[in-house]
Amino acid sequence: MSLLLVRQTTTFILLCALCCCVSVKYEPNWESIDSRPLPNWYDESKIGIFIHWGVFSVPSFSSEWFWELWKGQKIPGVVDFMNRNYRPDFTYADFAPQFTTEFYNADEWADILAASGAKYVVLVTKHHEGYTNWPSKVSWNWNSMDVGPKRDLVGELAVAVRKKEGIKFGTYHSLFEWYNPLYLSDKANGFKTQDFVREKTLPELYELVNNYKSDVIWSDGDWETTDVYWNATEFLAWLYNESPVKDSVVVNDRWGKNIRCKHGGFLNCDDRYNPGVLQKRKWENSMTIDKYSWGYRRRARLDDFLTMEDITSVIASTVSCGGNLLINIGPTHDGKIVPIFEERLRQMGEWLGVNGEAIYASKPWSHQNDTLASGVWYTSQKSTNGTSVYAIVLDWPDNNVLKLGAPVASHASMVSLLGYKGSLTLTPGTGSGVTVTIPPISVNEFKVRWAWVFKFTNLQN
Amino acid sequence: MSLLLVRQTTTFILLCALCCCVSVKYEPNWESIDSRPLPNWYDESKIGIFIHWGVFSVPSFSSEWFWELWKGQKIPGVVDFMNRNYRPDFTYADFAPQFTTEFYNADEWADILAASGAKYVVLVTKHHEGYTNWPSKVSWNWNSMDVGPKRDLVGELAVAVRKKEGIKFGTYHSLFEWYNPLYLSDKANGFKTQDFVREKTLPELYELVNNYKSDVIWSDGDWETTDVYWNATEFLAWLYNESPVKDSVVVNDRWGKNIRCKHGGFLNCDDRYNPGVLQKRKWENSMTIDKYSWGYRRRARLDDFLTMEDITSVIASTVSCGGNLLINIGPTHDGKIVPIFEERLRQMGEWLGVNGEAIYASKPWSHQNDTLASGVWYTSQKSTNGTSVYAIVLDWPDNNVLKLGAPVASHASMVSLLGYKGSLTLTPGTGSGVTVTIPPISVNEFKVRWAWVFKFTNLQN
Amino acid sequence: MSLLLVRQTTTFILLCALCCCVSVKYEPNWESIDSRPLPNWYDESKIGIFIHWGVFSVPSFSSEWFWELWKGQKIPGVVDFMNRNYRPDFTYADFAPQFTTEFYNADEWADILAASGAKYVVLVTKHHEGYTNWPSKVSWNWNSMDVGPKRDLVGELAVAVRKKEGIKFGTYHSLFEWYNPLYLSDKANGFKTQDFVREKTLPELYELVNNYKSDVIWSDGDWETTDVYWNATEFLAWLYNESPVKDSVVVNDRWGKNIRCKHGGFLNCDDRYNPGVLQKRKWENSMTIDKYSWGYRRRARLDDFLTMEDITSVIASTVSCGGNLLINIGPTHDGKIVPIFEERLRQMGEWLGVNGEAIYASKPWSHQNDTLASGVWYTSQKSTNGTSVYAIVLDWPDNNVLKLGAPVASHASMVSLLGYKGSLTLTPGTGSGVTVTIPPISVNEFKVRWAWVFKFTNLQN
Amino acid sequence: MSLLLVRQTTTFILLCALCCCVSVKYEPNWESIDSRPLPNWYDESKIGIFIHWGVFSVPSFSSEWFWELWKGQKIPGVVDFMNRNYRPDFTYADFAPQFTTEFYNADEWADILAASGAKYVVLVTKHHEGYTNWPSKVSWNWNSMDVGPKRDLVGELAVAVRKKEGIKFGTYHSLFEWYNPLYLSDKANGFKTQDFVREKTLPELYELVNNYKSDVIWSDGDWETTDVYWNATEFLAWLYNESPVKDSVVVNDRWGKNIRCKHGGFLNCDDRYNPGVLQKRKWENSMTIDKYSWGYRRRARLDDFLTMEDITSVIASTVSCGGNLLINIGPTHDGKIVPIFEERLRQMGEWLGVNGEAIYASKPWSHQNDTLASGVWYTSQKSTNGTSVYAIVLDWPDNNVLKLGAPVASHASMVSLLGYKGSLTLTPGTGSGVTVTIPPISVNEFKVRWAWVFKFTNLQN
Repeated sequence: MSLLLVRQTTTFILLCALCCCVSVKYEPNWESIDSRPLPNWYDESKIGIFIHWGVFSVPSFSSEWFWELWKGQKIPGVVDFMNRNYRPDFTYADFAPQFTTEFYNADEWADILAASGAKYVVLVTKHHEGYTNWPSKVSWNWNSMDVGPKRDLVGELAVAVRKKEGIKFGTYHSLFEWYNPLYLSDKANGFKTQDFVREKTLPELYELVNNYKSDVIWSDGDWETTDVYWNATEFLAWLYNESPVKDSVVVNDRWGKNIRCKHGGFLNCDDRYNPGVLQKRKWENSMTIDKYSWGYRRRARLDDFLTMEDITSVIASTVSCGGNLLINIGPTHDGKIVPIFEERLRQMGEWLGVNGEAIYASKPWSHQNDTLASGVWYTSQKSTNGTSVYAIVLDWPDNNVLKLGAPVASHASMVSLLGYKGSLTLTPGTGSGVTVTIPPISVNEFKVRWAWVFKFTNLQN
Repeated sequence: MSLLLVRQTTTFILLCALCCCVSVKYEPNWESIDSRPLPNWYDESKIGIFIHWGVFSVPSFSSEWFWELWKGQKIPGVVDFMNRNYRPDFTYADFAPQFTTEFYNADEWADILAASGAKYVVLVTKHHEGYTNWPSKVSWNWNSMDVGPKRDLVGELAVAVRKKEGIKFGTYHSLFEWYNPLYLSDKANGFKTQDFVREKTLPELYELVNNYKSDVIWSDGDWETTDVYWNATEFLAWLYNESPVKDSVVVNDRWGKNIRCKHGGFLNCDDRYNPGVLQKRKWENSMTIDKYSWGYRRRARLDDFLTMEDITSVIASTVSCGGNLLINIGPTHDGKIVPIFEERLRQMGEWLGVNGEAIYASKPWSHQNDTLASGVWYTSQKSTNGTSVYAIVLDWPDNNVLKLGAPVASHASMVSLLGYKGSLTLTPGTGSGVTVTIPPISVNEFKVRWAWVFKFTNLQN
Repeated sequence: MSLLLVRQTTTFILLCALCCCVSVKYEPNWESIDSRPLPNWYDESKIGIFIHWGVFSVPSFSSEWFWELWKGQKIPGVVDFMNRNYRPDFTYADFAPQFTTEFYNADEWADILAASGAKYVVLVTKHHEGYTNWPSKVSWNWNSMDVGPKRDLVGELAVAVRKKEGIKFGTYHSLFEWYNPLYLSDKANGFKTQDFVREKTLPELYELVNNYKSDVIWSDGDWETTDVYWNATEFLAWLYNESPVKDSVVVNDRWGKNIRCKHGGFLNCDDRYNPGVLQKRKWENSMTIDKYSWGYRRRARLDDFLTMEDITSVIASTVSCGGNLLINIGPTHDGKIVPIFEERLRQMGEWLGVNGEAIYASKPWSHQNDTLASGVWYTSQKSTNGTSVYAIVLDWPDNNVLKLGAPVASHASMVSLLGYKGSLTLTPGTGSGVTVTIPPISVNEFKVRWAWVFKFTNLQN
Repeated sequence: MSLLLVRQTTTFILLCALCCCVSVKYEPNWESIDSRPLPNWYDESKIGIFIHWGVFSVPSFSSEWFWELWKGQKIPGVVDFMNRNYRPDFTYADFAPQFTTEFYNADEWADILAASGAKYVVLVTKHHEGYTNWPSKVSWNWNSMDVGPKRDLVGELAVAVRKKEGIKFGTYHSLFEWYNPLYLSDKANGFKTQDFVREKTLPELYELVNNYKSDVIWSDGDWETTDVYWNATEFLAWLYNESPVKDSVVVNDRWGKNIRCKHGGFLNCDDRYNPGVLQKRKWENSMTIDKYSWGYRRRARLDDFLTMEDITSVIASTVSCGGNLLINIGPTHDGKIVPIFEERLRQMGEWLGVNGEAIYASKPWSHQNDTLASGVWYTSQKSTNGTSVYAIVLDWPDNNVLKLGAPVASHASMVSLLGYKGSLTLTPGTGSGVTVTIPPISVNEFKVRWAWVFKFTNLQN
């Protein structure tokens, strides 16, 4: 019965007479919540873009945790930055009017996002600072319409992204807020009161879903207390049963310190989670191109950014083990995705343009990485012609000879190199392995080089 | 029994053994609330200072209603001011970081307030803009600790005022807020929901009372809906029964559009309420030295300020009819009471220094103003020697002869002129009236001149 | 011959045929410069208003010497003010964009200036900070058109003041500039080079005279070096011989550290110069209503401002000894004359409205102050009916009896009290003195009270 | 005799006794000025980095011509940007306090500059806006010490660059200034007056040379009038005869509208000058990585930046024809070289690290580009072993076979590929040409790929 939920909308209408009498009703407990099948689109997407933007983009110093580093942890470098550049009584909220976003053009962003090859976008709509990037009714004078941009940043991007075919729009949302006195009061009460949840967190989540039809709810800020405080299962039951996105939405797992990596939709576990081995449940590796920050840093140096080799490597290791990759950029306070981010995203799109069939809608194969060759990760696709296996090779094979230990080939197999029209020679290797010999290839043959995909077809699995 | 409540503190202690077993318990309805006697201190004070301060003190243009005039009523002069001086997307909340209060010295203010002769101060703690001048837990990032001053403006003044003997500290508080989405939502629901009241208004009132021990709760912003929405009687019952100021606090009447001028403590009715005739209930005339604004206006011209003649006139007419006068000043965004306000206040203090016995703790007399002479207002004082009647004469009598029609004198009466040591001649006038003949007086005899008080003693009333 | 210079313009035209062939040609030396008669209008004016305005009006802290106090003398209070309220690397020039003058309305200023009874205005066009309040060609990006107001502040006031009848427009100008590197370089060269004079000082003076037709050149900043460095006599010879204001302009004496109080037009000597005895040359007492600053101070308290008694006292002592009074106000950075200044100016105008005949165009009398009565200063006027003597009495006579020791009266004399219609009794006093007996006067007889003028007429001097 | 001038400093000392009696004395005319040999270091350097930084880096919109585009040409997009984001009376000079440079670390810059492989740096010290990036004595309150950074931007970079071995430090300086009233006045006088030259331009040039010992004087802003107005030859004669850098300094040709591309040191002619054929005199191609601006643009998109293929192409075409390449970056207002610029510079450095011997100290060869193969540019080096010819090949040869028409080889020649250790086969081609056959090369053989250099040695030229 649950299969009906993932059918196409068109068929859904026809089936509605039947469907409604037998529709699943999720209960507000994890067993029931976890029983909901993850909508297919999510696993098929594989690659998403994460966007960290907020008042922290004004100082754009240290990281999106600026406020906490300054006032909470009192990190010397951050305290010193404030001392050197601001009047002594400057407060964090005083930054907000400088969040001007004058160059923000959501269609321009959507062009870049689409060009990256990503299939979904997750925008920070509210980080731990509590400032909402949309005109929330429960965040008065601490939202993007009331102070700073005077714009609905979330709404503009939702519209622009949806003009692009094949990209879903998701919303990051922090459950807790470092300095919200309602939260601090609940916390001081041992989380036995829930004023903050009732007056801020949940109304925000409902606004996001109702206004922007989030395809992903990417929850965060869960580590201080349990899901019980957050009323997580109640919200999710509503989301799955009644919300306007009940059939299509996916959520992650950060719904309480006891829940993360156990319950919910896909599993995020920790930041930059990348286990390196196949996982039983769908998971996501959220990571960031700037190695040291999710929010924009004005002081970032070239060396702080992942290279394309780093990025293709993490795509390979993540997807081969069943994960999605959510790769982060931080726009500026004036609304730009700076060129270094644009370059990485467009180059990722070029690589996926050539090698996407190894990634999108792929399935993990029996082996994740090779037993013999290091830097080789596998994925697979099933079709009516059988299963193809893709070996994503991070370093070009020495002497143009690729030796693999995994059983990628059988008698009837063929091998090809994505993005190359010539033919390769496949010979049996040691044990179950194979050797692929690549003919002389001109140095400028490949538009994209950061990793290569060898495709083995006609397998008899 | 309720009489006990209004006794002097000294006697109260003695009577406490009895008192506590029979203490009044007010009910949350107006009949019960209204049955509470007004603490004596309030009527005896007669003169208070009102202080309007907030984010509106940053533009300090037009009036403290700046936000509403700009965005709500779209008054051309205000819209034009913004167009000429700010970037197009500047928001009202963007003003808040400029509310710097760097020169705010609450002890300096208290010196001026004390010098004015006022016996209570009412500080705007939150106006219709919703910004709290104290670090309210329910006004996050829209209060004076989080954005702008980084100080507890209310707390600092409370402490400073209480260092001065004989001055009470009161707090103005607006029930509604023009643009708070919680309020607007309740309003859109026909005030059938009370989220705003529960999450903002009432918590603020409790904070004010508990933190600052307000001697006066000066409520405002009541005109859009009824007291039922505001839970007014519940709050007042708590205030009178349980709060830390239950014995001493006074409140006004602005607790709902149906309540004003009918219920509560003293009656404010409308701004600048000055009926000119004796009132049955205690009332207060709240008015402002700048004729056109309660908040500071940078463009104000000398002619916009009341003269000392205006001020003594309004003191006379107000007090003679049983009212208190709450006279307003507006400090600047940087925390100063500008000299023109300081001058008026200090001069008022000089006048009261000479003529205070006609004002403080006085009672209305049988006549309020004179039947024969215009510009003459009466007050009275009872003492063991009988009743004294004070004729407050706004214009110096022509030819030094004051003719009064009211029955101020009997055979045994004497007349004197406050601040003058010489003797005056009292002769019977037409009917019940009298004629007072003043001897030649040197032009520089009087330090203060804006109005004169003739005191008639030994009356046989 | 020099008499021709002070004739009215109308007659001047008729006489021009003669005049031009015999016109005086002043030489660039002090003997010649000093030989020029001071145009009559200046002595007749008696009262002028000084206006200090500039970038120092932005911090409006401490005084118009803010920059020097901060960076030169490093006065702790000023350094501390900067440390507490600005980022560490904030420079003085960084203040200039905040000199916004948005409320500056020169016609409003002119109304107030005219109402003060003053007959000339001296506006600071450039103080020691070097910033010019007009778009000077030799002060690029450090003038009121290029940074801050984007307006010609001097030009606007010149036009507005000249719309008022009977007020002259003068320009204050500082010769030196604290931190101008050209000046500092000349200074380091022992003032043997004159780059600063040639490139900045003199071009500015020519611009002021040619553009704004200054009626007064009020020079300052002369104390560090001699007139030789400043090319003072050359400039003055041009001013007197060729400039568009050659017939009407007056200058002061601050043209070099050796010149002040010796040469030039009228003598300013030091700030607040008020010798208390008759002077041989025309002089001017320049002083300021805020006792502690010429520029606006946001922190000024009421007690820091001169009272009207102070002001009438200084008018009396100054004029009786042959001086003019130049009384200073400091407008705000946003272009307002604040009410306390407006009040003093308008009250001064009221006093002069009643008592002006003792001041305007008066001449010192044989006695300046009284030998018997303290607080009495004399002036005189000659007319076809003989000479009148005015006794300006600062304190109202005790018991309405004024006893004077100076020989104000003869047998044929009469006495009156300006602003009072009744008659006074004049009787011979001890020696040459008189006794004036004032009849009973109603307390409200006098609109203005801060000093009284007794006029003695038909004297046989 | 002029040879002495270019000797090494070490020998110079020894020879000084002779040298000084015969030293060249240049005359202030172009024939004499042009007779000075260009110091060798300049031609040998080949690659320099140009840096555009100034107040225009604050709006960082449109280009470094922002002021002129806004106020002079009134370009709609620029006018609109100001209208949308600033108060109406905002002036260009009002931007200066926001030129904060808080992240400027000259050593960090020097690291990047050194890594780029450039041998000289040319920093904009003053652009047409007139703001000096050093504390010039003739640009008071319009320089980097007085307003904005409060730092000597030029001095800090000069020190940092000179810590790096083998990099020279040059200074860009604009002769004219769009809006300097002194200049405009001279211009209005038909350039018959020279106040601006005497008071601003020349003093600045002397300051730069004396303070920072500029190795390059990169003059600009010359097109409105002739060298006569600018006193160009007088300055250059001083520079060559007496200045502290007389032996080592090089200058360009922009010294008057009649001079450019004719006289001076090396020839810049126009921006992006790249004639494509061998030039008789030493020249320089100054161009910029952001195709549309020399100053930083916040709105720049990835596509606006030159690719590494673009950059290696322009290096090849420029150097082969005898030019130097001066490649521009624009730092931000807060003092950073953004990552996209850092990436291009470091990648250029990687390319030069492999291929530098074809560039540094190379000489043009008999042929500049190939007659047969397109995208091939030649340089040469002489050594004791004979001359080597370098073919810089922009596109990898099809099928790994390079066919050249130019006579690069003789019987004894050998060919190699820089950065590749294997051997190549050289066979005679059609006519004078050759065919180079490259063996199979692994795709990841080359760290840098954007262009390849084939070296032909042992030529018998």
